[in-house]
Amino acid sequence: MPVPSAYESQRTNSEPPVSDPELLRLRNSIDNLDAALIHLLAERFKCTQAVGVHKALHKLPAADPAREQAQIARLRRLAQDAKLDPDFAEKFFNFVVKEVIRHHEALRNKS
Amino acid sequence: MPVPSAYESQRTNSEPPVSDPELLRLRNSIDNLDAALIHLLAERFKCTQAVGVHKALHKLPAADPAREQAQIARLRRLAQDAKLDPDFAEKFFNFVVKEVIRHHEALRNKS
Repeated sequence: MPVPSAYESQRTNSEPPVSDPELLRLRNSIDNLDAALIHLLAERFKCTQAVGVHKALHKLPAADPAREQAQIARLRRLAQDAKLDPDFAEKFFNFVVKEVIRHHEALRNKS
Repeated sequence: MPVPSAYESQRTNSEPPVSDPELLRLRNSIDNLDAALIHLLAERFKCTQAVGVHKALHKLPAADPAREQAQIARLRRLAQDAKLDPDFAEKFFNFVVKEVIRHHEALRNKS
């Protein structure tokens, strides 16, 4: 049985081995980026959770359409600079905001 | 007219000023995390684009269901450790993969 390579040994147990070094290299980068994305999203939800609590405590309105519009415009600009499709950046933002609203509603239903 | 604070001066022009320092602090963190997320997503799409080109060149099948299953299982574990809802992590992964497929189809239609 061949000894697993340095890349291969980092793979998950359930994933079948891949012998193509270029594919392995790219997949390894994707896995690293995904781990970073998950951790940043966890941190982002901690912040939005804190915003939710703060707004509830100070009786501030939950939604802020002007803020959202400014966020979308900024993310589209950042995406353009990073060579990411600005439409995707906006879709991503809306996807995350939908989850934030779900969290806030769950929080409200609990209290 | 009051001089804008350090936080305030970082805001976008289109966003109305906010005088609540705690809200500003949290929003500033959200904006920093969003910028990081956009840049990581840009990098991730560069990798998946390269995977697409590599697979096309070497006549490898575009889809790899076993790899996808392993990715989802790993991201759910990472999310759990990071105190992020694992169901959201899986939804996020599927959202990104949908975009990757859209990119690959656009690439195929161009060639």
